[in-house]
Amino acid sequence: MAFELDARLAADTVCVTKRGAIDIRLMRDARYHWLVLVPEIEGAVEWFDLPDVAARALFTTAQESAQRLQALTRADKMNIAALGNMVAQLHVHVIARHQDDAAWPAPVWGVGAAVDFDEAGLKDRLIALRGIL
Amino acid sequence: MAFELDARLAADTVCVTKRGAIDIRLMRDARYHWLVLVPEIEGAVEWFDLPDVAARALFTTAQESAQRLQALTRADKMNIAALGNMVAQLHVHVIARHQDDAAWPAPVWGVGAAVDFDEAGLKDRLIALRGIL
Repeated sequence: MAFELDARLAADTVCVTKRGAIDIRLMRDARYHWLVLVPEIEGAVEWFDLPDVAARALFTTAQESAQRLQALTRADKMNIAALGNMVAQLHVHVIARHQDDAAWPAPVWGVGAAVDFDEAGLKDRLIALRGIL
Repeated sequence: MAFELDARLAADTVCVTKRGAIDIRLMRDARYHWLVLVPEIEGAVEWFDLPDVAARALFTTAQESAQRLQALTRADKMNIAALGNMVAQLHVHVIARHQDDAAWPAPVWGVGAAVDFDEAGLKDRLIALRGIL
């Protein structure tokens, strides 16, 4: 069956770039630098559901994205997480955290409401991300 | 410099077993089945700080632990996360989530107070975990 991006992920994120079969997406929340990595494999829910090669590729892409995003944003800490309690389709969060961000030191999920980008802000953010990813 | 477990991790968790240089620990919170994996490498904060071999070993151990813990607990979803906003020393959470648990569908961090095991409960839990890990 062909892969289809979950409707909520499609609404909450926008594609930055693709790395092989991994869709690297930006969370529409200007309060953070927050990526969501989605392996385009239909039916995957847990990381260990993936074939070994795809599981390792997702790991490598998460680590590289985290390292580059930390360098770009001078983040104090990177958060990497596969949760999926709300959206079962396998996705990995890569989030740059700063000690003055909206949720620090708590995790970002469930803290206040997302602040969407305006058009210019989104364009700028995507240019910056595409330069490093 | 020799590795020393962070004092807060030492207080909040108890050793289940070791896999190479990875200390697999149980969170002292009987509300969940919650493991914390700590690579015994002094100074590591981000996953990508680790040498490649150690980074991959931590990934493999996290995935295997998650898969076995899900089978043991019949969890609805596994959560795997490296956050470290409170405790900088690199550690990876592997948490079995159930739709009737104390935090579902939110992440577990910051929800209510941890419920420590009693002596018999801790012993039983460690026996069960050592049987699969």
